[in-house]
Amino acid sequence: MSRKLLMHVGPTIINDEVLSAGHVNNAGFASPDFIDAMKNALNGFLYTVKSDNYMPFILPGSGTLAMESMASFLRPNDNVLIISNGVFGDRWKAIFSRYKLNIDYLKAEPGKAVSLSEIERMKKHYRLSVMTHVETSTGVRFNVNEASQILRNVSDLIVVDGVASISGENMEADKWDIDIVFTASQKALGAPPGAALLAISPEAVSELKDDSLAGFYNNLYAWKNVMTSILDGKSAYYTTPPVHIIFSLAKAFELIKKEDIDNRIKRHSIVAESIRSGLEGLDVKIIADREFRSNTVTAMMIKDPSRFMSYLYSRDIEIASGVVPELKDSYVRIGHMGWININDAVATVSAVERSMHEMGYEVSPGQGLKNVQEFLFKNNL
Amino acid sequence: MSRKLLMHVGPTIINDEVLSAGHVNNAGFASPDFIDAMKNALNGFLYTVKSDNYMPFILPGSGTLAMESMASFLRPNDNVLIISNGVFGDRWKAIFSRYKLNIDYLKAEPGKAVSLSEIERMKKHYRLSVMTHVETSTGVRFNVNEASQILRNVSDLIVVDGVASISGENMEADKWDIDIVFTASQKALGAPPGAALLAISPEAVSELKDDSLAGFYNNLYAWKNVMTSILDGKSAYYTTPPVHIIFSLAKAFELIKKEDIDNRIKRHSIVAESIRSGLEGLDVKIIADREFRSNTVTAMMIKDPSRFMSYLYSRDIEIASGVVPELKDSYVRIGHMGWININDAVATVSAVERSMHEMGYEVSPGQGLKNVQEFLFKNNL
Amino acid sequence: MSRKLLMHVGPTIINDEVLSAGHVNNAGFASPDFIDAMKNALNGFLYTVKSDNYMPFILPGSGTLAMESMASFLRPNDNVLIISNGVFGDRWKAIFSRYKLNIDYLKAEPGKAVSLSEIERMKKHYRLSVMTHVETSTGVRFNVNEASQILRNVSDLIVVDGVASISGENMEADKWDIDIVFTASQKALGAPPGAALLAISPEAVSELKDDSLAGFYNNLYAWKNVMTSILDGKSAYYTTPPVHIIFSLAKAFELIKKEDIDNRIKRHSIVAESIRSGLEGLDVKIIADREFRSNTVTAMMIKDPSRFMSYLYSRDIEIASGVVPELKDSYVRIGHMGWININDAVATVSAVERSMHEMGYEVSPGQGLKNVQEFLFKNNL
Amino acid sequence: MSRKLLMHVGPTIINDEVLSAGHVNNAGFASPDFIDAMKNALNGFLYTVKSDNYMPFILPGSGTLAMESMASFLRPNDNVLIISNGVFGDRWKAIFSRYKLNIDYLKAEPGKAVSLSEIERMKKHYRLSVMTHVETSTGVRFNVNEASQILRNVSDLIVVDGVASISGENMEADKWDIDIVFTASQKALGAPPGAALLAISPEAVSELKDDSLAGFYNNLYAWKNVMTSILDGKSAYYTTPPVHIIFSLAKAFELIKKEDIDNRIKRHSIVAESIRSGLEGLDVKIIADREFRSNTVTAMMIKDPSRFMSYLYSRDIEIASGVVPELKDSYVRIGHMGWININDAVATVSAVERSMHEMGYEVSPGQGLKNVQEFLFKNNL
Repeated sequence: MSRKLLMHVGPTIINDEVLSAGHVNNAGFASPDFIDAMKNALNGFLYTVKSDNYMPFILPGSGTLAMESMASFLRPNDNVLIISNGVFGDRWKAIFSRYKLNIDYLKAEPGKAVSLSEIERMKKHYRLSVMTHVETSTGVRFNVNEASQILRNVSDLIVVDGVASISGENMEADKWDIDIVFTASQKALGAPPGAALLAISPEAVSELKDDSLAGFYNNLYAWKNVMTSILDGKSAYYTTPPVHIIFSLAKAFELIKKEDIDNRIKRHSIVAESIRSGLEGLDVKIIADREFRSNTVTAMMIKDPSRFMSYLYSRDIEIASGVVPELKDSYVRIGHMGWININDAVATVSAVERSMHEMGYEVSPGQGLKNVQEFLFKNNL
Repeated sequence: MSRKLLMHVGPTIINDEVLSAGHVNNAGFASPDFIDAMKNALNGFLYTVKSDNYMPFILPGSGTLAMESMASFLRPNDNVLIISNGVFGDRWKAIFSRYKLNIDYLKAEPGKAVSLSEIERMKKHYRLSVMTHVETSTGVRFNVNEASQILRNVSDLIVVDGVASISGENMEADKWDIDIVFTASQKALGAPPGAALLAISPEAVSELKDDSLAGFYNNLYAWKNVMTSILDGKSAYYTTPPVHIIFSLAKAFELIKKEDIDNRIKRHSIVAESIRSGLEGLDVKIIADREFRSNTVTAMMIKDPSRFMSYLYSRDIEIASGVVPELKDSYVRIGHMGWININDAVATVSAVERSMHEMGYEVSPGQGLKNVQEFLFKNNL
Repeated sequence: MSRKLLMHVGPTIINDEVLSAGHVNNAGFASPDFIDAMKNALNGFLYTVKSDNYMPFILPGSGTLAMESMASFLRPNDNVLIISNGVFGDRWKAIFSRYKLNIDYLKAEPGKAVSLSEIERMKKHYRLSVMTHVETSTGVRFNVNEASQILRNVSDLIVVDGVASISGENMEADKWDIDIVFTASQKALGAPPGAALLAISPEAVSELKDDSLAGFYNNLYAWKNVMTSILDGKSAYYTTPPVHIIFSLAKAFELIKKEDIDNRIKRHSIVAESIRSGLEGLDVKIIADREFRSNTVTAMMIKDPSRFMSYLYSRDIEIASGVVPELKDSYVRIGHMGWININDAVATVSAVERSMHEMGYEVSPGQGLKNVQEFLFKNNL
Repeated sequence: MSRKLLMHVGPTIINDEVLSAGHVNNAGFASPDFIDAMKNALNGFLYTVKSDNYMPFILPGSGTLAMESMASFLRPNDNVLIISNGVFGDRWKAIFSRYKLNIDYLKAEPGKAVSLSEIERMKKHYRLSVMTHVETSTGVRFNVNEASQILRNVSDLIVVDGVASISGENMEADKWDIDIVFTASQKALGAPPGAALLAISPEAVSELKDDSLAGFYNNLYAWKNVMTSILDGKSAYYTTPPVHIIFSLAKAFELIKKEDIDNRIKRHSIVAESIRSGLEGLDVKIIADREFRSNTVTAMMIKDPSRFMSYLYSRDIEIASGVVPELKDSYVRIGHMGWININDAVATVSAVERSMHEMGYEVSPGQGLKNVQEFLFKNNL
C-alpha cells in the first residue's frame, strides 16, 4: 500500500496517534482502561455537538445503525417527516419503509436543499422529523438550525443526521433545539469505522420506552442502561462494543479538544474553500449550489468518472464515486474531513488538474492551483 | 495498561500481527487493498466452517447483529424453534419477541444441554430453528451435528450460533446440514470486535427475499449484493464496513490457515483441558457437565465472585463475570479462545490457586498446578 | 509469530504502549515532539539511577557503545582497572585492549563475584575502574556500592555497567559515589534495542575533553553538546539519533515513574525469586551463588542446552543460551526483566519442568511449581 | 502531532507497513523470525546496490558508524584520500583525524563537486579513498562511477558514502568497481534510524584482519562473523542488533523489490525535478549546480532561514536547516527521499510559495506551482 491520500467521504485519513490508541492486545470490555476510554469518548462527543447536558450513546455499527435506532422513538402508524436533499436523505425512506409508519417526504433537487418555506407548509403533527446536516451524496449542507425552529411547531422530535458534518461543521444541538444528532466514527472524527455516536436531549431520553418499533440491536431503550453505567464509571453489557475503535475515538476526542472544536471547524472550512477555489479555477461545475456548500464533501461534475478516478488513483489520490442515481455517470465526490489539511487540498487540486488534462479537458498547467494560492495568499494561510 | 492476560470470553488476547494488519491510515472501503482483504476474510471464514460452497457475509456489528439478521428469513407468524442452553440461547427469545413470530422454546438447566429426545418430540413445522454451539454463559457445548439431523425433519432452516465456538470447536456446516452458522470477530478468531461473520448454504441464500421481517441494517437480502461484488473482486456499498477490523480478520485467517484449522481446534482443546485439570485439582465445581464441556469457555463456581475477580485482576489475569441470573453471585467464567496457549492456562490456574487461598479456601500450594502438569506430562506437552 | 514469551536477557518483552509510542511516521530529529521525548527520556533515566544532578546521555547504539565511550575519559598509557565477574566483565578487556592502556584485571569464577578484599589489595592509581552491576552471562549481581567505596581511594573515575540491572536493581549512583553508570534500551527498561543511556556525575562531565582516546562516534565530549541543547529544549545534531526508540523510551520512563522505581525493582525481585524457587524445587543448579543472585538474570545448569532450549521454544518460551566459554555446553540463561510479571515466572517454571521431564530428568508433575506457589502463598502474592 | 509532511534529509516519512513490521513485542535477536528478517534485510541491501556477490553488513548505529568502521581497513600511518563536496565529506576528516593516518583532502565549493581532473592529479598510493555520493549538506551528487575509475589506479580500496543516495540514486557498486558502499536506515530506504548498512566487495572482505585501527564497536572484522552466520540462517551475537529496525528494514526492502529499484530511483528523480521546477519558478537559487543536482536533497538559498522554516512548519511542512558553516544563515534543505511522491512535492512548493510571500518576497500566487505542473504535464505525470 503506497502513501495514497484518502480524500474519501469515509473512512478518511486517520491520524497515527488515533490508530495507535487502538493498538492494544488485551482490552476487555470490562477493563477499567476501556471503561475510561468509553466514558471519555461519550463525553468527547457531547463536546463536539456543544450539548453537555445531552445523553451520549455509542453503538457498535455504522452511521446507518444510528439512523435505524430512531425506531426506538416510534410506534406503529406514527407520522414521520423526511426532509431529503439526496441519497442519504432518501435512506431514511428506505429504512422507515421497513416499519409500519406514515411517511411524509420532502425532496430537493441534487445540489439544492429543501426550502424552509416548503417545510413551513407541513401542518400535520409528526412524531419525528429527520434531516441531513451534510448530504454525503452531493456535499449539500442544510440549515438545520433554522429548519429546526420551524419543525418545532409540528414535530415532537427533531433528528439530524450529522454523519458527514460533526466536527467539520458547527453543531449546537442544545441551542438549536435538535433532539437527536448522530455521526459515525470514520467521518470528520477521523477514527476507524465501526462506531455510531448519538447525542440525545434529556427530554427525548425520557421518551425511550421498551414498547417501540425497534428491534433488539437498534433499541436505544436497552442501550441506555449501558451508557448510564459507563458514564458512571461502571462496566455494562448489552452486546459487545467495538473496544478498539472506542480507544481510538477517545484519542480522537482528546486531539479534537486540544485543537478546539471551533478551530477544527475553521480548518475544515479552509480546506474546503481551497479545494473549491481550485476546482472553480478549472471551470469545473460543483454540484452544490454556492449557498449550500459544505466543509466536508465536494461533489464535482466530470465526464467518464471512473476513468477520472483511476487517473487520480494513479496519482495517489483516492476519492469517492458518485451515488446520486440520475448523476451517477457524470460526477465524483471529494471528501475533506477529519485530519486533512491544506497540503492535502493542494495535492488534490494538482492531481485533478493533471487528470483533467490527461482526459482531454482544456486546462493550462497551474490553472486551478493559481486559484488555490490566491485564496490562501488572501487569507494569509 | 500492564501486561494483563485477558482470559475473557471476548474480546480475547489479540496477536500483534493481527492488530498491526489493521494499522492503516488510508484505507477506504473501495480501495483495492481493502477489497482483497475483505475477500480473503470472507473466504477465510468458510475455511473455518469447512463449507467452501456456502456464501460468506461480514456485517458491521457484534454477534448479536448476526442473530437478528435471521429476521431476513422470516415472515409474520412464522414458527421458530429456540433451543436454549443458557443466556445466549435466551437471547434468541428476546430478539424474536420483538417480531411477530410464533416461538417454541426448549431450555436446559445451567450446565446442561437440551436433550436430543426433547428435540425429537417437537413435531410442528418450523421455518427456522436456532441453537447455540457453545453457550458463552456457562461454557456448555451442544452437539449441534446430531441435533441438526433431528431438526432436519421439522425445520426449513437450521441455524447455529457459533459465536463462542468457531475456530475453537470443530464445525462442518455443510456436512452437518446446518444452513446458517455465524460468529464474531473478537472470539476464537482473535481479532478486535466489530464484525459479525456468517456462512449461509446456497439453499438458504436462495430464500433471501426483500419482503422479510428484517429491518434495514440487518437485512441479509440487501447485504448479499455487497458480498457478491466483493467475492467478485469489485467494490460495493450498503453501509460502511469496519475496514480496519476486516484487515485484521484477513490476517487472522491467514494465520489460522497457517496453523491449520484442526491444529487450532486441538490447541483450544488442550488449553481447555489444562485449565479444567487445574480447577479440578482445586476441587472447584465446573458448571458444565463433563459431557458438555467446551474448548473455549469454562464457568466455575466460586463464592463472592467479584472479590475473586479483583484478586485475579491484581494478579494480572482478567476473566469474565457470571451472567446466568440464578447463578450470578456464585460463579465466574474463564475464556480460553483465539491465540491462547498452555502458558496462559498455567498462569491462570496459578493465579486461581493463589486467589482462592487469599479468599480462605483450603488449598495447598501447587494443588491445582500439579494436576495441570500431570495432564501435560501424560500428553507429552 | 506466535505468542512466545521472550524470557531473554535482551531484548525483552515490550509493553504495547511503549511500542506504539514509537509508531510515528513523520518524526524528524529536530521536531518539537522529538525534542520533548528525548528530554523526557534523558531525565527519566536519571530518575531510574536516583541521581538528578548527573548529566544524562543517549547514544545511538547498543550497551557496548556506552562501554567503549569510556575512551572519552582516557589518554594513552592510562591505568585502568577491570573487575570482571564474567563474559561482560571480560568485554571491558576486549575493548580496552584496542587502545593503548595499562590494564589491571580481577576476575571471579563463574557464579561468584570478585571479593572486596581483592579490590582492597589494588594499590596503583587508576584513571578509571570498571565493574558490572549484573553480569548477564551468569546473573551474578555485584555489590557495586561497597566496591565503589573501596575504589574511591585509588581510582579517579568509577564506572558501573548497569546494562542488565538498571530499573531492575537498585542503583543510587550519586549516593554510592559512582561517576558513570549506563544501560541499554532493551533490557530492564523494556524498550526496543538501539539506544545506550549513560548518567555521568558533574565532576566526570567536567573531565570530558577533546583530546582523549575516543574515536568520533563514541566521543562523549562531542555528544555532550547535543545533550546540553536537548535538555535546554533545543534541537542539536551530531549523528542521527534513534528517533523512534527514543519515543518508546520516553513512554517507558513515563510508565516506570507511574509504577515507581522502587515498586519496579520489587517486582523484578519477586519474579526472580519465583523463578528460582521453581528451579530449586526441580533440583536445578543455579550458577550464581546465593548471595550474588540478581533480580534480572538466572543462569541454570542443564545437560544438552540447545535441546533444552528447543523444547522450551516449542512450549512458547524463548530463553537465552549460555555464553561463558567453560560452561557453554552445560547451561542456559533465563532473563526476567522489564515488563515481566509473576504469570511469566509461573509459565516459565511449568515449561522448564515439562522440558526437563521430556529430557529424561526425574521430575514429578508440579514439583517445581509447588515451590513457586509456596513462595507466593507465603508472601501473599 | 499533526499530519506534518516530513520533507527532511533523514529520518524521512515512513510507510505504515514498514513501521508496523517493527511493532513486535517479543522479538529476540536469536528468534527464527528475526534471523529471517535480518537475512532478508542483508540481501535486500545488496539488491539496492546491484551487487549480489558483495558481503552485506548491518551495524547498530547511524551512518556515521559505517564511516568510522572504515578504520577496520586501516593501520597506523596509512595514506587516505578524502574527496569532500561539503559537510559530510568533511566529516571523514573529523573521523580520520582521531586516528594516526596521513590524510590527503580535496574539497569543492558549496554547490560544486571536486573535479575529476583534480583527482587525476593525486599520484600517491592510498590505502583507501572516500567520497560522498550525495552530499546531504548541499544536495550535490557526485559522479562516483567515473571517479572510481580514476581512483582505481592509486587506491587499494574505494569507499562511497551512499547515506543520502542509496535507493534514490543509481548505484552499481560491483560494476563501478567500488569496494565499499554504505547507507543508513532512515534515508531513502525509509525505515526508522538506528541501523547502518554496508556492502563490501569480496576482495575488501578478505582484507579484514584483527589488527586494524578499529576499536571494538566499529570493527568489521569482528562483525563479519555475525553476518556470515545470519546469512547462513544461524543466530550470532557480537553486540545487540536493533531488532525492531531490522524488521522494518526487511519490510522496506520487500516493498522496494515490489516497486523495483529502477522505478524507485525514477520516482525519486521525478519528485526532485518537480520540487526544483517549482523553486525555479519562484526564482529561488538552488545551491547545487545544475549538473550536480541529486534526486534526494535540494538546498535552496533563502533569507532568514529559521523564520522561513517556522513559516513552513506552521504550514505542516518540516524541512531541514542548513549546515554548511559559510552558508548557514542563508539556506535551507528539502529532503525528498524514501516513500515521497509527487503529492508531497506539490504540497511543498505550495507552502514554499506562500511562506516566501509571507516573508515579503515578490511572488505571485501559483508562480512556482505553474512550473511544477508544466513539468508534470510535459511528462504525462
